[in-house]
Amino acid sequence: MPVNKGIVLASRPPAAGKASLANFAIFEKELGEPGPGQVLVRHEFLSLDPYMRGRMDEARSYAASQEIGQPMIGGTVGEVVASKNPHFAVGDKVVGMGGWQTFSIDDGAALRKLDTPGVPIQAWLGALGMPGVTAWYGLNRIIAPKAGESIVVSAATGAVGSVVGQLAKAAGARAVGIAGGAAKCAYAVEELGFDACVDHYSDNFDADLKAAVPKGIDGLFENVGGKCFAACLRRLNDFSRIALCGAIASYEGKETTSLPDLRLVLVKRIKLQGFIVSDHLDLWPQALRELAGLYLAGKLKWRETIAEGIEAAPKAFLDMLEGGNFGKQLVRLA
Amino acid sequence: MPVNKGIVLASRPPAAGKASLANFAIFEKELGEPGPGQVLVRHEFLSLDPYMRGRMDEARSYAASQEIGQPMIGGTVGEVVASKNPHFAVGDKVVGMGGWQTFSIDDGAALRKLDTPGVPIQAWLGALGMPGVTAWYGLNRIIAPKAGESIVVSAATGAVGSVVGQLAKAAGARAVGIAGGAAKCAYAVEELGFDACVDHYSDNFDADLKAAVPKGIDGLFENVGGKCFAACLRRLNDFSRIALCGAIASYEGKETTSLPDLRLVLVKRIKLQGFIVSDHLDLWPQALRELAGLYLAGKLKWRETIAEGIEAAPKAFLDMLEGGNFGKQLVRLA
Repeated sequence: MPVNKGIVLASRPPAAGKASLANFAIFEKELGEPGPGQVLVRHEFLSLDPYMRGRMDEARSYAASQEIGQPMIGGTVGEVVASKNPHFAVGDKVVGMGGWQTFSIDDGAALRKLDTPGVPIQAWLGALGMPGVTAWYGLNRIIAPKAGESIVVSAATGAVGSVVGQLAKAAGARAVGIAGGAAKCAYAVEELGFDACVDHYSDNFDADLKAAVPKGIDGLFENVGGKCFAACLRRLNDFSRIALCGAIASYEGKETTSLPDLRLVLVKRIKLQGFIVSDHLDLWPQALRELAGLYLAGKLKWRETIAEGIEAAPKAFLDMLEGGNFGKQLVRLA
Repeated sequence: MPVNKGIVLASRPPAAGKASLANFAIFEKELGEPGPGQVLVRHEFLSLDPYMRGRMDEARSYAASQEIGQPMIGGTVGEVVASKNPHFAVGDKVVGMGGWQTFSIDDGAALRKLDTPGVPIQAWLGALGMPGVTAWYGLNRIIAPKAGESIVVSAATGAVGSVVGQLAKAAGARAVGIAGGAAKCAYAVEELGFDACVDHYSDNFDADLKAAVPKGIDGLFENVGGKCFAACLRRLNDFSRIALCGAIASYEGKETTSLPDLRLVLVKRIKLQGFIVSDHLDLWPQALRELAGLYLAGKLKWRETIAEGIEAAPKAFLDMLEGGNFGKQLVRLA
């Protein structure tokens, strides 16, 4: 019997405060056999994503809270190592919501077999997974860029933002990123093909942003909020669209992100729309097909930050909330 | 030769301040003959609308400023009394942008002949005109109500709001108005067929609103902003839509209307969209056809406040900005 090792939520962070390592605890537990209809999956990679922070609080978010004492939820890819489910065989590679642990037992209903040759397995947690579909939905279904328009995305080198920029380029738009630091900005332009990327740590951030969008902003894919959002508001064009995906600058009790004057929305006929990708499961097959096609054609790149071993997950997660990752944050589990 | 009498913008209101009678001046001037291709129209009614307030300022709004010394712009209905345009004959009833004056000379390009029997001419300035199409666009194209949903509209007995409520009912939705005073609220329910109407002057406004939308708000047609908007924000459902049409509570330097925390938009997947009906001229024929059909079927009612004579226009306009009108504000000119 394998020994499963994982991380539970030990306690909730203080209200409107920061999460810390003390909120997590490690566990080890021998696993039983999978029961009838179940499969045992050995996880190879765990995905760390900002949405998890919301789950750590008492339910105030769109999703149920993470239960205390239970393994943290999270997306995983891995291999079936025992199966009593006729749809899965030992050796199948699968993606699912296995959580922050090295193994999971699953009834298979929400597991998906990975059978696209030429795709590294962890991509299904990133550009070809939830973050990629998030980018696809917000860009294509809310912003709907036209050729020649200027699209700005914050957290531009993250798992979502990097896909947004590349999809915007594929649509013939000008892609402008906002990222933290010169290295990320250089990567966005040189590797991901953004037309420009603005460093939000720069003292000249506002002026740099203005220079990067000389014709204003037609579409804003907002992951961050805070001062990045405020600066973008000043550059929005008539009929611009804002896809509101996250506001990480306002998490953990940090300053609220607001829209200070609704007359802007009226006068410029702006559309602002919040969305959560799990509301649109019907579109995932189309999105994943398009994203995989782009990848296999060499038009979708990304970068990963990989923490080693389940014990490293809590610190890697907290670092990510502060922008310490560079690209998709993963934990290697096997 | 007829003598044309009208109102010019004499001076701009103070920045972020109130307009006053001193900003207007009357003029009288003998008119010449219409030139080749022109028609002379005697106005029967002038429409007064909140958007005109924005035009009085230096251009900061979506539209050009009203020029000082020129007749105030405004929609008019009237009769052709002389024509050198082959498309118009003496006696034709027409709607156009004749301005705050008793006559206008027009090249006919933006005049529309009125030939629907059974419709009072001034309706083309109200429920079957710009305000009606505004209601139609915001409700049908932004909110898109489903049967059983709850739709809230502020300034519910005004020219736009009264149509919004009746269109919401026609779509099978629950229509809830917000209006100023018991008389307007009673009228909204008893005459216009709203399911409920909440008096924003009431000390119990928040509680009354909550009681009026026991299942929350799915669609908000916002004409007012300010505290009405803030109260509605607290009642918005997941996937609710806000059509932002106006923010009269924030005009003239009054308190700004804001969206204080964007996480609400994210968590509830809200769509907020500003719009201006003149961007959608392609849809006017469809909207007017549907609105006229509803009216002729007895399913579209409205109320008018009529000021008598062009001299009364400035005061009627200023009163309207304070909510002094009850229904569509018109000025009778002939």
